[in-house]
Amino acid sequence: MIKVAVNGYGTIGKRVADAVAAQPDMEIIGVSKTKPGAEAFVAKQRGYPLYIADITKKENFEKAGIQVAGSVADMIQKADIIVDATPGGVGEGNRVLYEKYGKKAIWQGGEDHEVAGFSFNSSCNYTEAIGKQFARVVSCNTTGLCRIINLIDSAFGVKKVRATMVRRGGDPGDVKRGPIDAIVLNPVTIPSHHGPDVQSVLPNINIVTSAMIVPTTLMHMHFLNMELKNPATKEQVIELIKAHSRLGLIEKSTGITSTAELKEYACDLLRPRGDLWENGIFKESISVLEGTDLYLFQAIHQEADVVVETVDCIRAMAGRCQTASESIAITNKAVGLTAIR
Amino acid sequence: MIKVAVNGYGTIGKRVADAVAAQPDMEIIGVSKTKPGAEAFVAKQRGYPLYIADITKKENFEKAGIQVAGSVADMIQKADIIVDATPGGVGEGNRVLYEKYGKKAIWQGGEDHEVAGFSFNSSCNYTEAIGKQFARVVSCNTTGLCRIINLIDSAFGVKKVRATMVRRGGDPGDVKRGPIDAIVLNPVTIPSHHGPDVQSVLPNINIVTSAMIVPTTLMHMHFLNMELKNPATKEQVIELIKAHSRLGLIEKSTGITSTAELKEYACDLLRPRGDLWENGIFKESISVLEGTDLYLFQAIHQEADVVVETVDCIRAMAGRCQTASESIAITNKAVGLTAIR
Repeated sequence: MIKVAVNGYGTIGKRVADAVAAQPDMEIIGVSKTKPGAEAFVAKQRGYPLYIADITKKENFEKAGIQVAGSVADMIQKADIIVDATPGGVGEGNRVLYEKYGKKAIWQGGEDHEVAGFSFNSSCNYTEAIGKQFARVVSCNTTGLCRIINLIDSAFGVKKVRATMVRRGGDPGDVKRGPIDAIVLNPVTIPSHHGPDVQSVLPNINIVTSAMIVPTTLMHMHFLNMELKNPATKEQVIELIKAHSRLGLIEKSTGITSTAELKEYACDLLRPRGDLWENGIFKESISVLEGTDLYLFQAIHQEADVVVETVDCIRAMAGRCQTASESIAITNKAVGLTAIR
Repeated sequence: MIKVAVNGYGTIGKRVADAVAAQPDMEIIGVSKTKPGAEAFVAKQRGYPLYIADITKKENFEKAGIQVAGSVADMIQKADIIVDATPGGVGEGNRVLYEKYGKKAIWQGGEDHEVAGFSFNSSCNYTEAIGKQFARVVSCNTTGLCRIINLIDSAFGVKKVRATMVRRGGDPGDVKRGPIDAIVLNPVTIPSHHGPDVQSVLPNINIVTSAMIVPTTLMHMHFLNMELKNPATKEQVIELIKAHSRLGLIEKSTGITSTAELKEYACDLLRPRGDLWENGIFKESISVLEGTDLYLFQAIHQEADVVVETVDCIRAMAGRCQTASESIAITNKAVGLTAIR
């Protein structure tokens, strides 16, 4: 069993912990929080040993009825691999700790590529992660882009990608975030950070991205254009997507035309927390114009898609599966990722 | 003086009435409502004679203290030209009335091109409207697209346009519209209606559009990509935009990065109702990649940009100005459209 610690039991961390705990070859040896709160109670209910960054604050947790197993340093020493899901920008500072104890670590997309020197996506570069000490799982949007771009590039060659991200303003629980009534350019300049971030996984892709933030919480929406090197048909693209387990195809017959209806559907499928781990690609939107100009809309669940990638990344770094398809199959089965179509 | 009637004193109609009343060569001879309400009181306050579609409902208005000047048929007979600003799809049915009385009429973008057989944009095809009986001023988004596309096409040649519209869910007063927490594909299929609508004004432009609706009220946001036939520089594009009075350039130094801040700025400039009649083009977003691949963001105020176009269309149809620049200068001066930069 691969002993996994989750440093930062928040939006991503709590999902990674559940996904890891569901795997046949992994176990959660601990999770960490800085303050008591709802998520600390969830960790207790799940039976995950809870570690805290500042052991002098142990009393705060115990007063709230939450047992503390030790310090984050204690937790790290017990783990084979640490998933760092602390807030964006914080994880970088933890690297010294992981190095000190000679542990493997995975950061999330809120950190820069340089934190690990290697950026991961299961479908694109699984084998490069085998045996690595450090890796970064790219952000939700970059993950969603890498999956579909790499697939289309492998089949037809991609000359140029133009992608527009309409981003949710905050997660459903983020009551302090905005905007309330604005479309915010994020950033005003072209490209957004997503293009270069995709290139950290797929260095040969020519990509221009733009991004806006809007007052929603449920999912991001991408509008993608790919100029192809070789002609494709809509039917060929659909068949490729159907064959990829991390790309979900939303049929017209579902009547789903928005992020909200898609989230409702994931809840009705009894996915944990209504999580959509796969890209939600709208079948009707898939269009090939002039033979080589591909367009599509895809919804990306910001809280979910990186979770299954992180599990694969753990497995690759631990050297347990030698191919992406093998790991993806195990991960999907364990969490309950079956086709939404 | 050109005698103008506004049939449908709502979001667009009330703005057109004020803009017409401000012109030196036009007067409002009447506006129409179907029901008493806040806008009827505004018409009364402005001193616009109020006509009603169903004269049997005269009493409803009079009970509310609003005087009724007569029926819509009466109003039409008194006018040289009617601006039909009734709700989208309703205006088509009024054509028979305008024909019956041999009057000129202008519809809004909520109607199909076929209602008039001619679609108008001041910057693109002013002279074609001279003397015409019927015209349609294209919708807010199409107006915003036509202005910038035609400018860039004239200077460098446009090989292909790809535009993504992130649309406001409703106007600020539309309390019954949604969505509240969703990004809605509108439509799921590619292209949205905007591409063909641009071609109703600019038939030779190769354009692909997509559209989403989000929970905001203040303005639409467009992300535009234009592949150019001839190389351009960012500086050349900026100079062209600066020279076009219906294209506003938003400087980085304003700190404006969203629709909401732009609307606040228009209010602070004491524009009537905070209206932004021009495209709000974000200067920092203007990027020319690989010499011929132009990108930019522009905000479009859905309630405002067609208003000044409608005034120009009235003038063209009445045969008063023989060039667009002459009419645009008069219109702009009368409403108070001066550079926002």
